[in-house]
Amino acid sequence: MPSPDPQPAFVLIRPQMGENIGAAARAMWNFGLDRMRIVDPRDGWPNQKAVVMASGAGRLLDEAQLFDDTAGAIGDCDFVYATTARPRDLTKPVFTPEAAMKDARARIAAGGKVAVMFGPERSGMENDDIARANAIISVPVNPEFASLNLAQCVLLTGYEWRREAVPAVDMTVAAVAAWAEQIEVEKLGAHFEERLDEAGFFFPEHKAANMKLNLRNLWSRMPLTRADVQMLHGILRQMVRWKDQG
Amino acid sequence: MPSPDPQPAFVLIRPQMGENIGAAARAMWNFGLDRMRIVDPRDGWPNQKAVVMASGAGRLLDEAQLFDDTAGAIGDCDFVYATTARPRDLTKPVFTPEAAMKDARARIAAGGKVAVMFGPERSGMENDDIARANAIISVPVNPEFASLNLAQCVLLTGYEWRREAVPAVDMTVAAVAAWAEQIEVEKLGAHFEERLDEAGFFFPEHKAANMKLNLRNLWSRMPLTRADVQMLHGILRQMVRWKDQG
Repeated sequence: MPSPDPQPAFVLIRPQMGENIGAAARAMWNFGLDRMRIVDPRDGWPNQKAVVMASGAGRLLDEAQLFDDTAGAIGDCDFVYATTARPRDLTKPVFTPEAAMKDARARIAAGGKVAVMFGPERSGMENDDIARANAIISVPVNPEFASLNLAQCVLLTGYEWRREAVPAVDMTVAAVAAWAEQIEVEKLGAHFEERLDEAGFFFPEHKAANMKLNLRNLWSRMPLTRADVQMLHGILRQMVRWKDQG
Repeated sequence: MPSPDPQPAFVLIRPQMGENIGAAARAMWNFGLDRMRIVDPRDGWPNQKAVVMASGAGRLLDEAQLFDDTAGAIGDCDFVYATTARPRDLTKPVFTPEAAMKDARARIAAGGKVAVMFGPERSGMENDDIARANAIISVPVNPEFASLNLAQCVLLTGYEWRREAVPAVDMTVAAVAAWAEQIEVEKLGAHFEERLDEAGFFFPEHKAANMKLNLRNLWSRMPLTRADVQMLHGILRQMVRWKDQG
């Protein structure tokens, strides 16, 4: 059974070596975190090498939730951080682990559901996955030498979660309830993308992929409530209706 | 050559596996620490396995100072911390890594010379070595599961050393992102209001004023960049063009 206290889910995106998944489980449980989610692990699941490495934290693997894609893994969350070594220019806020876990505590205290995404060992996170994040976590490493592995990145983030054991509730977050879940924002993005495709917005074609990425980034960067999402869907539907009448 | 900035020496006491010494070197250099001292390594020195594992941080091993015993390794220091999982000697202050590195910074700023000792992998530090320490560092791990290895312990301590020197939230976001000015957001709101009025979105009429207010609130609550505003104008214009063609 997971710990009763609410806490962020740690989402491993396409992890490669089982050993690293096991080491990540240990790193999490060192700091009392036990909600692991795994997206499309390279060597399938369950993974015996992960089990061996996790020794003592094996329960996290037994209870880990498996997903085919990133969208599914964060669908029920209303705020998602992506850990990356080199924050690329996506105009998202970049937090240290400290600031991020403070922020996460405040959101969770206000009833929010948050997740932290960790990319694959070699390549780091893909732009499409980063586009789904609301904010970036970057560990302030030596710029001459940044060599954190997956489990170390999990360790430092988990450490910061526990270090801030006393919640400092940010009232601006608490005041506005009913944040849209990630899956709702995802659907909103898909709805706009579909209609704008029909409308010929993504033009010229060689720029289309980048325009779509920018638009996805825009939605995920916005602090959208459920009501906002409904209104934005409604706006789009009405524009289409208008066109059909016109 | 070691970094010019004064910093604590990290002292590995009787480390066993070369891989762990190499991993400790990497963990240190991730946070800009490069003063390694090694006491009586089990497998002698130099150690090829350490070199392989340290890749990229090998300089720390080349420059590491080797000692026969703990007393020699910390002889020139005026304050020494011992890291241990379970603080035994209760007559010494027990610091979290955070508090210890704050303390170390203050001592070093005042001209002091400090060291942090890390025990062997299996057994942890011997009482004789702990007795030489002025204070204990204990990482606040999950009491049900404390399984930090040598490199992880080095990593968390190094992280705390550096954390104190780096701002928690990176303001480069604000710098790279040209945030939209109020007047631009105002115009965006007006553009949407006008077109949506034409499209018959604000319906039924007795709810129109409130719907407009909600929409204005949405735009002003969003952290919009100039590029976002341009994209949202563009979306709206394209929808109208689509309608006109339809």
